[in-house]
Amino acid sequence: MSTFSWSVRVYWEDTDGGGVVYYANYLKYLERARTEWLRSLGFSQRALAQDPGIVFTVTDVNIQYRRPARLDDELIVSCDAKIDGAASISFEQRVSRYAVDAAEGAETLAVARAQIVCVDARTFKPKRLPPLIKNALGAPELK
Amino acid sequence: MSTFSWSVRVYWEDTDGGGVVYYANYLKYLERARTEWLRSLGFSQRALAQDPGIVFTVTDVNIQYRRPARLDDELIVSCDAKIDGAASISFEQRVSRYAVDAAEGAETLAVARAQIVCVDARTFKPKRLPPLIKNALGAPELK
Amino acid sequence: MSTFSWSVRVYWEDTDGGGVVYYANYLKYLERARTEWLRSLGFSQRALAQDPGIVFTVTDVNIQYRRPARLDDELIVSCDAKIDGAASISFEQRVSRYAVDAAEGAETLAVARAQIVCVDARTFKPKRLPPLIKNALGAPELK
Amino acid sequence: MSTFSWSVRVYWEDTDGGGVVYYANYLKYLERARTEWLRSLGFSQRALAQDPGIVFTVTDVNIQYRRPARLDDELIVSCDAKIDGAASISFEQRVSRYAVDAAEGAETLAVARAQIVCVDARTFKPKRLPPLIKNALGAPELK
Repeated sequence: MSTFSWSVRVYWEDTDGGGVVYYANYLKYLERARTEWLRSLGFSQRALAQDPGIVFTVTDVNIQYRRPARLDDELIVSCDAKIDGAASISFEQRVSRYAVDAAEGAETLAVARAQIVCVDARTFKPKRLPPLIKNALGAPELK
Repeated sequence: MSTFSWSVRVYWEDTDGGGVVYYANYLKYLERARTEWLRSLGFSQRALAQDPGIVFTVTDVNIQYRRPARLDDELIVSCDAKIDGAASISFEQRVSRYAVDAAEGAETLAVARAQIVCVDARTFKPKRLPPLIKNALGAPELK
Repeated sequence: MSTFSWSVRVYWEDTDGGGVVYYANYLKYLERARTEWLRSLGFSQRALAQDPGIVFTVTDVNIQYRRPARLDDELIVSCDAKIDGAASISFEQRVSRYAVDAAEGAETLAVARAQIVCVDARTFKPKRLPPLIKNALGAPELK
Repeated sequence: MSTFSWSVRVYWEDTDGGGVVYYANYLKYLERARTEWLRSLGFSQRALAQDPGIVFTVTDVNIQYRRPARLDDELIVSCDAKIDGAASISFEQRVSRYAVDAAEGAETLAVARAQIVCVDARTFKPKRLPPLIKNALGAPELK
């Protein structure tokens, strides 16, 4: 499956007194990209929370911060999804920035892995991924 | 009724690239003080959302920013409540900081008015304030 | 001067436990629209902070919340600027959402006024708006 | 070295539309605890940024989310620091909540490791930890 990418602009709200993007805010960027990836497959999380009554909850994040992002930067957040359980999706993600010298391509600011589990919107108990989502991900049937 | 006050510490998460507290974050401080004021009267908003099924929604905020707050500052957020309708409370609030020279007392960083309406937790339609809250506020019965 | 508009998507990060956008986050949306309006005129705030060493600080916000925004909503944030002092710009802003029935046009979720002052990036003391910005705003010369 | 703990209350600002604390906000709680741990040793980060001109930047976070936190919860955030390089500190942290039945003790909501590097406040290049901080941590001299 090809990599999905989403563009994110850095605003004042994202920066901290060190003049760079606050470290927790990268997790917002990662989540926006995952949301837009789902939307690109035709899924609205608000609709999924109503029917079939599921939300996605994060169980694990591993993130490495390599270079700081700054105000006005335009970032690219990528997202590679892999179904790795009946209720579980694993994401490889990357936050990059185009270099000023375009010939150099994008520089990587952060690299992350996020483990997501599909849960019941009320009880938060794990629930199998809907077949539609598994199909959209081109996943082989899981038992 | 005497003024209620709540102390708030400024962390990195609150500051922005200008080296001061980001302007939207003062509204978080104001809300924390209103929440703690309610708690001081014996009310948990999580419990109120279950029974009798109400939440408080803000309909109007007017805030003046006078001096910037900075990392590590310890702020005092005050809150004066007045019932001004069957479903409505108006708050006068102030964000202050003790001066380095204690003899000078506290300096005011921001002054705000917030109008809050009691609504049904599901429909968001206005709902009369529970008698317990009106009593706690020492309010004369409203028709 | 015609009205500038900027589109904003609502993500999980913006919502609160009431299922709607948290009230302080509207101020982030307002600021993004003002930032993009400045960018549309050719100004980067990061560059302005370096040379001529100015930032814009908010001194006053008045916001009315009329209807809640929810997850996945696509909002439109407008921004009408008026120079009203040597160092000061006043903004009229509106947060709207297209109705499901497009024939009905957009519904207004929030209306705001924000007063912004141009200050020295280090001292935070008011500083005259740069002529370039006044010209871009089509403002008559102020004494 | 004994474990440092800091108490954190969950407010509306911390929750998301799923009715639980938004996953990125745990990183704010972790950072507050690290900041208060430093303060308990006598260090203000605002002062350190001035003299000797250092800030602490996070290079790596690994966090496991086990149970959701909710509005009004009072959390305990722990923090165990270990100097593991000339410019680097590694933290083991835990977010817990006292069980309703106090006899059961606290339940763990999240477990995290964070790697922090001491950098020059302007250049963001690694800089040796100040001796005062190493001494406060009871660390053997590093070459």
